[in-house]
Amino acid sequence: MEITDIDGVFCNGIKEGKYGLGLVKVKGSIAGVFTQNKIRAAPVIVCEENIREGVVEGIIVNSGNANAYTGEQGLKDAKEMCRIAAGLLGCDERRVAVASTGVIGRKLNMDWIRKKAPEVYSSLGNSPENAHRFGEAIVTTDKFVKKAHSEKGRIAAVAKGAGMIAPNMATMLCFAFTSAKFDSGELYEMLKKAVDSTFNRLTVDGDTSTNDTVLLVSTGKERVEKDIFEQELHSVFYSIAKQIARDGEGATKVFEVRVEGGMSDDDANLIARAVASSLLVKTAIFGCDPNWGRIIAAAGYSGADVDERITLSFSDGKEEIFLVDAGRPLETEEQARKLMQNSDDLIIKIKLEKGSGKGFAIGCDLTYDYVKLNAEYTT
Amino acid sequence: MEITDIDGVFCNGIKEGKYGLGLVKVKGSIAGVFTQNKIRAAPVIVCEENIREGVVEGIIVNSGNANAYTGEQGLKDAKEMCRIAAGLLGCDERRVAVASTGVIGRKLNMDWIRKKAPEVYSSLGNSPENAHRFGEAIVTTDKFVKKAHSEKGRIAAVAKGAGMIAPNMATMLCFAFTSAKFDSGELYEMLKKAVDSTFNRLTVDGDTSTNDTVLLVSTGKERVEKDIFEQELHSVFYSIAKQIARDGEGATKVFEVRVEGGMSDDDANLIARAVASSLLVKTAIFGCDPNWGRIIAAAGYSGADVDERITLSFSDGKEEIFLVDAGRPLETEEQARKLMQNSDDLIIKIKLEKGSGKGFAIGCDLTYDYVKLNAEYTT
Repeated sequence: MEITDIDGVFCNGIKEGKYGLGLVKVKGSIAGVFTQNKIRAAPVIVCEENIREGVVEGIIVNSGNANAYTGEQGLKDAKEMCRIAAGLLGCDERRVAVASTGVIGRKLNMDWIRKKAPEVYSSLGNSPENAHRFGEAIVTTDKFVKKAHSEKGRIAAVAKGAGMIAPNMATMLCFAFTSAKFDSGELYEMLKKAVDSTFNRLTVDGDTSTNDTVLLVSTGKERVEKDIFEQELHSVFYSIAKQIARDGEGATKVFEVRVEGGMSDDDANLIARAVASSLLVKTAIFGCDPNWGRIIAAAGYSGADVDERITLSFSDGKEEIFLVDAGRPLETEEQARKLMQNSDDLIIKIKLEKGSGKGFAIGCDLTYDYVKLNAEYTT
Repeated sequence: MEITDIDGVFCNGIKEGKYGLGLVKVKGSIAGVFTQNKIRAAPVIVCEENIREGVVEGIIVNSGNANAYTGEQGLKDAKEMCRIAAGLLGCDERRVAVASTGVIGRKLNMDWIRKKAPEVYSSLGNSPENAHRFGEAIVTTDKFVKKAHSEKGRIAAVAKGAGMIAPNMATMLCFAFTSAKFDSGELYEMLKKAVDSTFNRLTVDGDTSTNDTVLLVSTGKERVEKDIFEQELHSVFYSIAKQIARDGEGATKVFEVRVEGGMSDDDANLIARAVASSLLVKTAIFGCDPNWGRIIAAAGYSGADVDERITLSFSDGKEEIFLVDAGRPLETEEQARKLMQNSDDLIIKIKLEKGSGKGFAIGCDLTYDYVKLNAEYTT
């Protein structure tokens, strides 16, 4: 199921070298969540303003240039992108959502966008090929386009995002469409909740790029129960979050950190995030090294209330190897190492004896290729 | 000037493969600062307790095993280390400071320590060779022993520490000695201040290892003005902090982030630390890529009050290349790239227009070798 399988969604895209341009035609209600970075890219400012009334008729996206830290000119350019899309789609420019991703601090090549937009529009459609071209148009260093859907929820989403290893700064753009009928207020409430429990487990609070944008559009053609929709939206975003972790720049393994028994959910989340963000944990996972001391130490400096009564296990979803039992090391490193070598999707479970708080985070390993990719990005 | 040039300091050390043992004989007043990690290694707990009265007669240190997360047995072992040293030095075991560094969660090989301690003691002395052997005994993955001194302040210090790249978890041990006469209260006050403005700029608040220990011992044989001593202690620790950054696991370049014009010093420090900790900034510096967008973005997510009116420059201490002037990119990337290629000690200056807050942080680049070292540490 592609985004074009949602009744009322038409799209297309083009990619030329590093640069891409995507266009969506879709009438409906819309909600969006944006980066918490204090330096907000021009398209974020313009998009948030444009979707304020909760109505959308089109989306325009470019890749290769973030149009961030570009001052007044950047705002003008983001608005011109909306105007170009509005002209082609025949709607008010304030009913166009806009997003950008790429290098920071460089002016957009508006000539290229002006020239390419009509070309993209001319082949707008709702075939799988259209959806494919839109996906390809929005990615940057991604190894693949992220996609997920729910038949039950009548949801399909497409996204770009990689290099969330820090988690630190790689722009995430996600465009989700549904034919389920909800107004923009309902959409926003459900979107916020789903993002908090999925993408925000990747992008630790505040460590977001200048351009992060998640949009949810309803074409309103069908009825879906709200609680089913919420659940399905969570599943779709969870799938995309895992795909983004898997495509973490140079990543070879993705892992989840599940924490139980924290003093509070906040405490448990602090621990999960500290562990998932630790460079020493990430490199150990790359090396299939069950160095649980690094996990315990990360829990210790997370800021959460922690003592030595920790139970710790590694799991591949089927087998679970306990490494520490209520503070007692179990000397099971060799079994854990084998499990790590045979799985590229690990679960680290941490159980404290502080309370009933639960926490969750998604991470990926840190590899040679991460360094390579990021040492050479703008050169 | 070695630690053994401080009147009253005798030491020795031994290294066998991954394991080391060092011993110091020194009578005097003492102060210490320790890790803020909630999981504190046994030697940290025992050492803090033993120096509570501000008097010391000996120091015992082992490397290769952190004696951290080792429960009751760990505490017993740390106390036994003190007892062994006390027996050899002929003092109360509660006048012995103790420190450990190495792998977490494994029991100390006390047999080895029991056997080697008399051997180390038998060659205790105040020759440069003794100081050298003590330094070698306390290092782990360090490429070199860190040393600094001040003739004026009558201070000499030796330290181990590397891999502070995150800054995240590599244990730092620092032993500073002075013949300047101060009581333990004065020492503590000056130590705290000097550590805050140097080592804590490397080890972001809370992101400390389970074992971090900095001790300052005064043999009290000379008089030095307090304000001169404070200044000189700062210089000694600043030098060691830079050496630790330079020895960041796999690091090829060290850099300082100097922030001015923040809303407050706290805000400016938040920015400095976010920039110095950013993986994307660290990899860009490794690649000599003047990707200032990543610096601006890190400032944006630091949590500090930030807007686009930022002036940003790279300097090697002699030449300064401005990349952004009050929010306006200057297109000087090529000059900045050359400066980066020709210097392994960079200064990133960030000037905001928010207030008069100043901040400072020290970092190093992130390289292939960091990944290699940490993916293979316990294997």
